[in-house]
This record gives sequence, C-alpha cells and structure tokens, in this order.
Amino acid sequence: MNFASDNWAGAHPAISQSLLAASAGFSAPYGASELDHQIEQRFNELFEREVAVYFVSTGTAANSLALAAVNRPGGVSFCHREAHMLEDECGAPEFFTHGARLAPVDGDNGKIDPQQLKAEIRRFPPNFVHAGQPMAISITQATEIGTLYQPDEIAAIAQIAQNYHLPLHMDGARFANALVALNLTPAEMTWKLGVDILSFGATKNGCWCAEALIFMNPALGKDLPFIRKRAAQLMSKSRFVACQFEAYLKADLWLELARHANAMAQRLQIGITNSMKARLAWPAEANEVFAILDKHLATQLQEQGAVFYTWNPPHAKPDLLNENEILIRLVTSFATELDQVDRLIAALG
Amino acid sequence: MNFASDNWAGAHPAISQSLLAASAGFSAPYGASELDHQIEQRFNELFEREVAVYFVSTGTAANSLALAAVNRPGGVSFCHREAHMLEDECGAPEFFTHGARLAPVDGDNGKIDPQQLKAEIRRFPPNFVHAGQPMAISITQATEIGTLYQPDEIAAIAQIAQNYHLPLHMDGARFANALVALNLTPAEMTWKLGVDILSFGATKNGCWCAEALIFMNPALGKDLPFIRKRAAQLMSKSRFVACQFEAYLKADLWLELARHANAMAQRLQIGITNSMKARLAWPAEANEVFAILDKHLATQLQEQGAVFYTWNPPHAKPDLLNENEILIRLVTSFATELDQVDRLIAALG
Amino acid sequence: MNFASDNWAGAHPAISQSLLAASAGFSAPYGASELDHQIEQRFNELFEREVAVYFVSTGTAANSLALAAVNRPGGVSFCHREAHMLEDECGAPEFFTHGARLAPVDGDNGKIDPQQLKAEIRRFPPNFVHAGQPMAISITQATEIGTLYQPDEIAAIAQIAQNYHLPLHMDGARFANALVALNLTPAEMTWKLGVDILSFGATKNGCWCAEALIFMNPALGKDLPFIRKRAAQLMSKSRFVACQFEAYLKADLWLELARHANAMAQRLQIGITNSMKARLAWPAEANEVFAILDKHLATQLQEQGAVFYTWNPPHAKPDLLNENEILIRLVTSFATELDQVDRLIAALG
Amino acid sequence: MNFASDNWAGAHPAISQSLLAASAGFSAPYGASELDHQIEQRFNELFEREVAVYFVSTGTAANSLALAAVNRPGGVSFCHREAHMLEDECGAPEFFTHGARLAPVDGDNGKIDPQQLKAEIRRFPPNFVHAGQPMAISITQATEIGTLYQPDEIAAIAQIAQNYHLPLHMDGARFANALVALNLTPAEMTWKLGVDILSFGATKNGCWCAEALIFMNPALGKDLPFIRKRAAQLMSKSRFVACQFEAYLKADLWLELARHANAMAQRLQIGITNSMKARLAWPAEANEVFAILDKHLATQLQEQGAVFYTWNPPHAKPDLLNENEILIRLVTSFATELDQVDRLIAALG
Repeated sequence: MNFASDNWAGAHPAISQSLLAASAGFSAPYGASELDHQIEQRFNELFEREVAVYFVSTGTAANSLALAAVNRPGGVSFCHREAHMLEDECGAPEFFTHGARLAPVDGDNGKIDPQQLKAEIRRFPPNFVHAGQPMAISITQATEIGTLYQPDEIAAIAQIAQNYHLPLHMDGARFANALVALNLTPAEMTWKLGVDILSFGATKNGCWCAEALIFMNPALGKDLPFIRKRAAQLMSKSRFVACQFEAYLKADLWLELARHANAMAQRLQIGITNSMKARLAWPAEANEVFAILDKHLATQLQEQGAVFYTWNPPHAKPDLLNENEILIRLVTSFATELDQVDRLIAALG
Repeated sequence: MNFASDNWAGAHPAISQSLLAASAGFSAPYGASELDHQIEQRFNELFEREVAVYFVSTGTAANSLALAAVNRPGGVSFCHREAHMLEDECGAPEFFTHGARLAPVDGDNGKIDPQQLKAEIRRFPPNFVHAGQPMAISITQATEIGTLYQPDEIAAIAQIAQNYHLPLHMDGARFANALVALNLTPAEMTWKLGVDILSFGATKNGCWCAEALIFMNPALGKDLPFIRKRAAQLMSKSRFVACQFEAYLKADLWLELARHANAMAQRLQIGITNSMKARLAWPAEANEVFAILDKHLATQLQEQGAVFYTWNPPHAKPDLLNENEILIRLVTSFATELDQVDRLIAALG
Repeated sequence: MNFASDNWAGAHPAISQSLLAASAGFSAPYGASELDHQIEQRFNELFEREVAVYFVSTGTAANSLALAAVNRPGGVSFCHREAHMLEDECGAPEFFTHGARLAPVDGDNGKIDPQQLKAEIRRFPPNFVHAGQPMAISITQATEIGTLYQPDEIAAIAQIAQNYHLPLHMDGARFANALVALNLTPAEMTWKLGVDILSFGATKNGCWCAEALIFMNPALGKDLPFIRKRAAQLMSKSRFVACQFEAYLKADLWLELARHANAMAQRLQIGITNSMKARLAWPAEANEVFAILDKHLATQLQEQGAVFYTWNPPHAKPDLLNENEILIRLVTSFATELDQVDRLIAALG
Repeated sequence: MNFASDNWAGAHPAISQSLLAASAGFSAPYGASELDHQIEQRFNELFEREVAVYFVSTGTAANSLALAAVNRPGGVSFCHREAHMLEDECGAPEFFTHGARLAPVDGDNGKIDPQQLKAEIRRFPPNFVHAGQPMAISITQATEIGTLYQPDEIAAIAQIAQNYHLPLHMDGARFANALVALNLTPAEMTWKLGVDILSFGATKNGCWCAEALIFMNPALGKDLPFIRKRAAQLMSKSRFVACQFEAYLKADLWLELARHANAMAQRLQIGITNSMKARLAWPAEANEVFAILDKHLATQLQEQGAVFYTWNPPHAKPDLLNENEILIRLVTSFATELDQVDRLIAALG
C-alpha cells in the first residue's frame, strides 16, 4: 500500500523495453541523434506548433532553467506559496538565476489568486531599482496539492502576465494527470491559454528519467542551449531520454497511465469519504488525495503497511485540523494497483 | 566504423537488463532506496575505505560539483590546458563555483607538468587578494588525449597539492580504461596516491547515464547533499542509476568492457603504424588513438564509412602537422567490434 | 523642511574637513595605510575586543557581504518582513550569496517575533535537502520603521541563533541612533548580547561614504578579504574612508550627531501628537517618525515645502489607515535644523 | 620618492574642496540629485553624444559591471594576458557575470595582437555549446604596462569586434593619461573608433573615489540600473561622486593633471636612459615607466627612500632580464613632484 509519492514508483515496462531496444548501435550524442530529432518533431505535433524542446535530467532542472532563460537582474518570479520550486528545490531556481527571487503568492486550493498576484506584482514599480523587477509567473498544473487550474483560471493569470509583459511558466511535473482530468489537449492547456514555457514531466508518470523544458515560442529559449550545457544538463547519451519519450507518447500511453493514476485517486477519495473515518482536506482533482484523520488511525494504517507522508496544513488554512488530527497525502501513480487502493480503504474501517 | 566517441555507443545489454529488472515495485526516491545504499556500500568495498558517493547525471556535473565542494572566493583551480573541464564544459565549472577560475597548466602528452604546476600556483601568493587564491588541482585519467598518468606522476602532483594544501581531483570520465591499462586497483590509482575527489564515469564505458562523484574523505564533501540538490542533480528515481552501477560493477563487467575498448585501441594503433599510411601523434595508452594522416586519405576513410573527429594539435606542439595533414581522433569503446577495427585498418591501405 | 531620508543630508563639516586634510601625501592603498590600521585599532577599542573591520562602499554591500561570509548552499537567512535587505536591496543579498534565500519573519513594530522566528527556522529540518538549510539571522537596529530592539529582545533572538548554530547579523545602518537612544555601549548592544556580525553604518549619520562590516570574532570573517575584493568593494584610496571614520568617532562626534537626530525626531513626535491633526503610527524610538494624517493635509504640507515619503502600512497592520488617510515617514538626521522641525509642526496646524 | 602607484596619491585639493563645498544641504540620493544629472549632461558634452553614465565605487566594479551588462551564458571575454581584469581583480569579472570566462590574448607591449585575437575568437565556433560563446572584447588604455593603443590599433580591434558582433570595452583606469598623450578628444579615442563601453577612471588621476561606467549607446546598458543596484554599487550619497567629477572636469583640470603625470614620467624616462645605470623595458607612453636595473642598485634606491614595485617580465618576454637584474615599475601621478623625480634620477647614479 505505497502512496508515498509518484516518484516511488519504478518505470513502466514499455519504457524499460524501449531503453533496452535502444541499447545497440551508435548515434550522435548531446541531443544530435536522429531519435532526438524525431522526438522533437513529435512534440511539435503534440503541441500543434513548432516548439523548442530541451531534455534535462530533473524537474528541478526544468523549472530552474525555465527561469534562467528569462532571467533579469534583480528579477522576481511569482509562484504559489506552496509551489515545488519555492518549497522543495533547495534554492535551485535562485541558484540558476544567480539570485533572482521567488515571491510567494497566496490563493486557495494551491492556486494563485489573480488579485493577490496583481497586488504582489504592483509591489515592484517599474524602474524602482531598490525593489527589483518582475520577471516571470509560474503556475503548477496539477498543483502541489493535487488540485487543478481550470482553463479560465489559467487564462486569467495569463492575462495578468501579458499586461505586465511577463512570461508565464507552467510546472508540469504532473502535466499528464492534469491533462486527462480536464480532458484538454496539450495545446489547449498551454499556449492557447497563454502559457509560454512548460516543464513537461514524464518521470512521475512512468519514465525513470525524462523531463523536457518546452518553449512555445522557440525564440524565448534561444539561449537555452548554452544555459543548459553550462548547467551540466546536456546529457551525452541523450537518445535514451528520447527513447523514453518515444515509448511514453506512443499510442497515448502517457494519457492512459495518467488516467489510471487519476482513477485510483478517485477511488481512494470515494472510499475515504464513505468510510466516515476520515475526511478530505479538499477535493482530489488529479492523482493526489489529501485526507484528514485521527492520529491514531493514521498510525494504525501505517502499521498495516500503508506508506504515505503527513503534510503541513496550507498557510491559508491554519485551522484545518483539530489537535488530534493529522493531514496525510496519498499519491497514486501508473503503478498503483486497484487492490492496494481497496486494501487501504478497507483498513480505514 | 564508428570511432567518433565512446559516448556515441549505446548501453551494454547487461546495463539495460538491469534497468528493466529494476522497473517494478516502489522504493524511496532521492537516493534513499535500499539499492542506493547497497551501491554506496559497494563503492566502499571497491575503494577499500569508507567513501562518500553522490550520483549525478553528467560528467560535467561531477567535475563542476567537485570544485563547488571545495570552492573559495576568488578561487583558482589548476588543470591541464586541454582538460575537458576547461575546453568542453561551456563554463560549467565556473558557473557552479560562482565564478572561480580554471587556470590552464601546460605539459606534454596531455599531462600536467609538475614544474609548470608549481610555477602557476606560485603566481598566487597567499593573502594577495588581487590575484585570487588557489583552491584545487584537477587531473584527468585517462587524459583527454588518451594518455595515462603513471602512478609516480600522480604522486608527484599529489605532493604539490599537499604542499599547497589543495585538494586533488581526478576527472575519471575514462577511469576504467586507465585502471585496466595500468593494472591498478581503484584505491591504488586514487587515494593511495593522494587523490581526494574522483569523478567516476561509467556512461562512456557501457552505462547510459551513470556518473558518481566520490569523496575519499567524506568530510570533504559534507556540503554536497545541499550543493547537489541546489544544482538540480538529485534525481528522484535515483535507484535507476544505482542499478546501472550494480550491473556495471558486478563480476567486474566494467573492467572487462574497458579491457575490450583498450584492446581495440591497441589493435587500431598497431594497424595504423603498420599501414605506413598514417602515423601516431603520440602513443595510445587507453581507448583513444590519435593519428596523423594525409587530408585526402582522411576524406577517403570517411567516404568508406569511417566516423571520427578531427582534432586541433596540442598547444605545445604547433608543428605536429604538415599542411597537407590532419590530426584525427579514433575512440574505441565497449561497443567497438573487432571487424570494424579491421575494416578501418584495411581501408587505410 | 526636508524629512525625506537621512541619506538626503550631505556630510558633516568635520567629515569633509577630515577628507580635505587627508588629501595630501602618499599612502598605501587597498586598506594597507597607517590610517586604515589606526581606525581598525579604534574599532577594537570601541568594541572592547579585537574585531575584524572591513570598509565597504554601501550599506547594501555590508549586509550582502555579511551573508556571503557565512554562506551555505541552499542557505536561508531570516530577517524581518520589512527589513531593508529584503525590501530595498534589489536582490543584492541573494546575488552575493549566489542565490541563498531571505525568509521573511513577521513581528510587531518592525521587530522579529522570536516565536515566529523559531517557527520559520523549524520549517527547515536538518539534512532535509529539499527545503534548504538555515544559515543566518539578521536584525536591524534601529529598525526600518524607527523602532528599537530592547537588549532583552536582542538576547532572545541571539539565544535562538545559538540554539540553531546560526550567526546573528545586525544591520546597523542607523546604529548610532539606536545606541544613544538605548544608552548602551557598542559592545553592550552587540556581542555582549550575542551579535556576531555588524553592518556599521556612518553614511546616514554624517559621513558621505563610510560603511564598515565588523566581525566580532575575526575568524568568522576569515574569507572576507577575498570576498570583498571579488565583490569590487575594496576601494583603492581606502584611507579616505578611514579618515571619515576618524573624524566620525573622534570625541564622540557620531553620538552627538545621533543624539541631535533623535532629539529632532522626538520634538517632531511631540508636535504631531499635540497638533491633534495627525497621529503616530507607532512610537518613534530613534530618528524616524511615522505619522498618519489626512491625505489633503499631507498634500498641503508638501505644498508648503515639506519633503517626505509616504509609506505602505506594515503587512501585519492592514487596517492601520482609513481610506482618507495616508502614512508618512519623517526622517531626521544630523543635518535637521530645529526651526525646520518647528515649521513642519506649525504647518500641521 | 613615491612611485609605487597612482593610487598611493591622495586627492587633488580642488577635488577635496569640491567635496567640502557640497557638504551642506539636502539632495535626492541614489543618483537622482540635480548635480548627478548635471554631471551626466557634462559627460554627454564631453563625448559629443548622448551617453549613459553610471557612477560606481571602484574600477573593478566598472570593469565587472561592463561585462555583466553584455553577459551571455557560457560567455567568454577576450582581454590582454596582462589586463588588470584578468590579473588583479580576484575574479570579480567572473563573479559579476556568474562565471563568464576571461580568455587571455597575447600581444606585444601590453596590447592585444589582432591576429591572436581572431585566432582566440575562432576557437569558439557559433553554436558549439561545449566551448562556450564569445561575448566581449576588452582593451586597456593606457595599458597595464604604460603603453598606448594608437587610434588605428583600436580601430583594428573594433573591426574584429564588429565582425563577430562583440561589444568592445575599454578599461580607462588611466583614460586621461592616454588621452593627453595621444592628443585626442574623448569621442575620438572611444566611440569614433568603435569603443562601446568605457570604464572612465578618475580616482588614479586626482579624485579619491570617482569611477564611471559609460555606455556610448545607452541601450546597451539598459539593464545597468538593476545590475548596479544588485551589485551594491549604487551609492546613496552619489552626489559626492558627482561633485568630484564636477571639479575634475571643470576647466580641463583632469587633462592638466594627466599632462603633469605624463610629463613626470617622460622626465623620469629620460633621466633613466641618460643615467646609463638602468634601461627602459619598453617606452613609457603615459604615466608608467618600467625600468630594468641591477638588483643591488634597486635595493640602494629603496634605501634612499624610493618606493616602487618590482614587476614580473611579460609572458611574451621571458628573456628580458639577466639574472642579476630586476624589472621595476615607476608610476607618476598628479601628485608627483618634480624634485622627487630629480632625486630619483640623481640617486640612480
């Protein structure tokens, strides 16, 4: 009953087979192989336009290099207070931008509130050098707490980005989970709404190491080849990333895997609600379920083999818990098995 | 007839099988899995002492983080003028050290000359802030031009490092090739001679993505966990690196692969010498052969399917070539097939 | 009626005379002159211990290099939400620390609340690389809003710093104003309470360019000579900074100037209170008075020649103002004349 | 007999008087005062075009921020092997550019050889990410060894800069000395020849702290306000820099001071040549004389009160000295007195 995180899962067999199949032969390294180029072309099709695609080794690298690409001296990027880049990347975004700052923006359900965003941006009047200058906005889809920006919510933020001439980045570590939940195409969830840069994550959804940084307008990422190489993120045998993406995108495997993960989360959510022994902290919209339960019950679950993390209540909801309760996070993935979900639900009572 | 580089090769089947076998199940991410810990233990055995091991995604990352670990303000690291970190890493070592400098040191055959090294270090008198301060020495084994530091040569540089209280780093992108060529153990080629930090490369020798940064004295790398994470080099599904190393080190596969590569280079070297149509630029001591031949002949080889890079003559040997000649680099690897070597030799004349 | 800021003032005549007197002759540059060493010795006396003193050109440089001296990868420094280093230095602290982060801590009256501080520090569990690691605490004395940490308040924060093994920095841009207001010695307001590093500002209090970074324990700043030079903060004709400090510290000129500035602020405060036309936002404890008044009245004052800045209400006090009111900041300095204060009070009504 | 360096001199009385005169009153800080704007206008007149002027506190800051303004990831700037930015700034240019590299270019007499420059630039083929990318060329006028680029020599380098689309920076720490020696106007020695960015130094020539970074095309420096502030180089009482420049430029004081320094150097040079006890290492063209003499004689001079530095022979001239000889540098300045020059000459023999 492992619900610790989607990066506790291994790799989908199709991905591993693809790696095996790609083992033989010689090809140009550093992204110059035929397969690399084919996958780049595949992303063009996927996004229905010519995009620029850069493979990197981690989601943190994708996020950090996205900001590095649009870096400004004294720059400030706006993201949700609970964003991964702010909370869980050990200052990598600051490091790769030579000290540009991340400014937390509040908002319910893990999503940036547009009014708060505007208020934060306005704290940096143009040409007031003392405060620094806005340089980017970043949203996470699905969010760190398993919720989703609806298309109109993305559009509202994109409008603000446009008004202030700021590029809009999407951290898509769980892009596929969001996509299938919203029943949108990649284009519909990104550039058609105003997203400029995407961290396209595949590692959590069945690959072992496949992350791509995508610029909807290639010109915006024109410095990326040098930025990425200098960041030690240009892998020599890059074609092995390419072959993971090949298998991942083939015949919509990625969507299928994400649908499975989301379905498992929905089943979990229903089971929790029906159990009357725990309650949802907020609706699970992708593949993460946050539940509130009695501390003793949580311990019992763990004793029965359930693996999960406890979570801090959101900054905006300090009163979410009673003192006898804890908040737990249950993450499902392509590898989550139905009977494990049902065992957990059964264990709840 | 692909002799372009050892990173043009794919992955050894045993490595790919290991990845496949590791696909199932759940394990702790970010280096915390049982397998990660087993491999760390394996490295302890390999080096006959307790070392600190950090997996990273590229050799450039290993080299750059090695320097970051011993960083000083205004720091200057000494490496050979033709070192990979100086010539081929797009300023990554400078970036990861926030601007510490690499100072080129000359020396024949791709190896740092100890006298030159001392002269360069002396250009930085202690406490003379204007010049900056020495912070590390880095050697490459096997070197960028396929030669080897003999044990006493490493010891001589290590003695200088010790005299000036500088850590000694070894870029071991082709560590295995050097090891089997010199018939030394990992301990004998490193810390027993005075090497403090090692970039242990496995990617060029049969893995697809397996690089480790090793501190012979773990205390020297005490900041590495944060440095690595901040550098976006802590891979979530790190156990897939671990499983590559597992297969790589098992039953001395890595040594076997390196021996094969070296043997192919020796065969190539002999063939070239005997051909009378080309001459060696310098002796091939590991898995790289540098040959000088007529430009027309080089073109003919390429037309017959040979793939290789031309190379600039070393800074110290401007008169190496006649005007009708070029210098070419032929790299062999675990994947180089005997008949390909023989075809190339045959094509020579 | 200029109350815009204490950096709108010029230089005290004694400072300028000192510069003039120091013009002739030759002396060793880069901090090596006899005068430089004398002033260093003077600081030892002032602080009643052997300290390390580094002159720099701006307060921002002093603050940023203080953090650079204790830098850690993924480092996080804690300061008040309204601290100058967080709000008004364009990311310089992040830049000089290669991306270390500033974490805002709340607290009333511009002062860090110890409980909040502990809560913030606890968000970074030891060895949890994802979050980064604590590296320093910084307090501002006098604070950005003209209040003062009482000795026991500094001691309480110092205790936390000690518990978490964090160095404690004091931004003393208005050090003298605080010192005379609290009637403490430099030693009593700093290391005797647990302050490790001090940005000792003299520019706002009568010099034109004299800032010093002081390490109470010289070993903590051992890298500073290289850090400062690399930061382009080692001035060649450094003795002209030294001679400003000479005149500044001579016969307690600095304390006299600060007492004057504070007295002017007190007079202003009393006048405002008595006017019944404006009210204090909070008590003025050093040389800054924050007053709330009707917007029209503020405009009238400006029309009569008063120069001052409007201020945003503190984050913690969103309800400080009615919609017809504004918050203004009135700063006094060594150069503020009594009759200007009285004119402003008279203009209030 | 102080010939140690022009930064051992103090400040010219006119400069110090100007500081004294500027002491009273209130003005806008951070470069916003009327005087700041007047001086900016004065620079426009001086350069016969609208330029952008940024005051900074050190020459190292000017040089480093010049490169920061044109920074590129993996960037490489080309300067002479003996350039101050390469030899004497403790890695500040690398620090302010987040690790961009300085590539040494050889050339006689302290001047970049255009053929060598082209050869170095060609080592970085466009889009070859491994090597990095060219980003700027920097020349020093007068050079570190007291020689001068003739106008056609600057033009030749500017042509290369233009061909490779690289900005051309001039380190003008001794700009005035070069200007009067060549009898050119500021415009004629800079943008009319193709110089894009100038570090305009006044500190060595009579100010105590007055350095300006000048962009001939203001658009090239458009990020400088934020870059400078983030670099802790925006001085609050900036008008005191402005008033130094005011006095410096008034009635051509600066040219007069530079003419004096150069004349003293010429007198020294003639005296040395005539003495037959020492010989010139190369012709002194500005205010620095490099002489070769017997070690014993050098010691005798020092015993008689002469202050100077010994110098390393240029990289390109290893055979400049006999083993009994040393190379010394004698620097003159606005403060050098005729009788001191004559005393030194007399002391020579």
